[in-house]
Amino acid sequence: MTPEEYLAIQKDRVNKYLEMFLLPETIKPVSIHKAIRYSVFSGGKRFRAALCIAACEAFNGDQVRVIPVASGLELIHTYSLIHDDLPCMDDDDLRRGQPTLHRVFGENIAVLAGDALNALAFNLVSRAEDCRIIRVLADAIGTEGMIGGQVADVESEGRSDISQDDVMFIHTHKTAALIKAGLEMGAITAGASDEDLKITGEFGSLIGLAFQIVDDILDIESSSEVLGKDVGSDELQDKATFPKVFGLDHSKEIARKMIDDAVAVLTRLHADTDILQGLAQFVISRVY
Amino acid sequence: MTPEEYLAIQKDRVNKYLEMFLLPETIKPVSIHKAIRYSVFSGGKRFRAALCIAACEAFNGDQVRVIPVASGLELIHTYSLIHDDLPCMDDDDLRRGQPTLHRVFGENIAVLAGDALNALAFNLVSRAEDCRIIRVLADAIGTEGMIGGQVADVESEGRSDISQDDVMFIHTHKTAALIKAGLEMGAITAGASDEDLKITGEFGSLIGLAFQIVDDILDIESSSEVLGKDVGSDELQDKATFPKVFGLDHSKEIARKMIDDAVAVLTRLHADTDILQGLAQFVISRVY
Repeated sequence: MTPEEYLAIQKDRVNKYLEMFLLPETIKPVSIHKAIRYSVFSGGKRFRAALCIAACEAFNGDQVRVIPVASGLELIHTYSLIHDDLPCMDDDDLRRGQPTLHRVFGENIAVLAGDALNALAFNLVSRAEDCRIIRVLADAIGTEGMIGGQVADVESEGRSDISQDDVMFIHTHKTAALIKAGLEMGAITAGASDEDLKITGEFGSLIGLAFQIVDDILDIESSSEVLGKDVGSDELQDKATFPKVFGLDHSKEIARKMIDDAVAVLTRLHADTDILQGLAQFVISRVY
Repeated sequence: MTPEEYLAIQKDRVNKYLEMFLLPETIKPVSIHKAIRYSVFSGGKRFRAALCIAACEAFNGDQVRVIPVASGLELIHTYSLIHDDLPCMDDDDLRRGQPTLHRVFGENIAVLAGDALNALAFNLVSRAEDCRIIRVLADAIGTEGMIGGQVADVESEGRSDISQDDVMFIHTHKTAALIKAGLEMGAITAGASDEDLKITGEFGSLIGLAFQIVDDILDIESSSEVLGKDVGSDELQDKATFPKVFGLDHSKEIARKMIDDAVAVLTRLHADTDILQGLAQFVISRVY
């Protein structure tokens, strides 16, 4: 199975689960349930969820048990995009080819929809009945993870003295932490050993960082039609990106090297890693 | 022990636990860790935490095991206040006698500090190693709980046609849901039976609603020196409050009646309910 085929299958499963789980738009207060569905079903790739499921499968875990966990991960990702797009953050107008949530529903509903998704994710993730998974997720999205990276990101805007360490800090925390956590959550759901869990985390750190570097590159080389979001916005907002600090060509080399390293890490796992290997290659070959 | 003495003891324990648990201000990014400590240690009563601990104690639960759970509850409460105060919500300048977080650290850090506390709370609550507690909390602060109430609240502002049902919906969801959940979380931590858990929830709904009604009354009758926040702000913002819809005197009667009902509910519990009874009375007698 190609990574694209695997992604399509898992995207469909996660979307069906979320369709079933999320409250209908008719439930009061109607606005927040509409806002949540608008954001959640706006066409994400569900790449994080697919990695989580793939990690679970690699260790022969139960695929049904991991779907709520993987779906919760996507709700966290969705909430983070909603809050990132807010006027007080990146002030973006376009996301996944549609107007950002606050442009349609107002800033207050956008803040609250993000808040609700944050909590809802923990309900989903709790369904594997293992509190270790809760802590892995909570830590990955806290001030030593995703939020820490987002803070460093907004504080770096417009600064001319951004170092390689700075941009590494931002990307490791803002993006890689959640991708790493998703893989670990899948492995824990499958009952992986502590050693395998550690190796899975190493793999996650590498592809998570590569994923964000490629994102930076696409923001320069792709088009908004393909990406479904504003391109060139990093430069416009004077964001700390890999191409800005390392140069475009060197950034590509770094990402390529990280994927090679990630694939090498996989050989140390006591698991069937074909799918994970394919998904790692997808990170570097994707065009959207 | 008087309820005030009990509150003082639990407040001290929760604050000490949070002092130990929360990252120091020196950790990078410094701004978010400063912002979190500014908000968390600005002098809340820790009433929700005390109720959670008292519920655990009533069923002979382990007091050490419940402290992280009760502390997590307070982080959720703190996050909700930070986001409620934002310019796109209530746009408040004063909270617990100090400038609101966004006035000091900026709107972006205030959003992110709230987000981080939301996640951090689930780390704490997970430490009782029971995923049912995670779901009770997640549900209580989602769109059928706290966030649902907050949405209805912001959408009711300035409307002249607020019904008794509307204000009941807002208060039940915005305030009572979390207080109810806290009591249930304490009871689950102690291993209470399903029947006792249900009754504890009934008690929580009643005192949670009474708590918010008294809050509405204090916003009219107290002073900002005593409350540590702007008074009269409900009327200024044309908020849906109990006094506005039911009248001031009738609101007092309703709150009194709810506390009487709550105390009656307690007699059905297989537990030592002296402290819970005292805390219920405190709801109606408090002046801050």
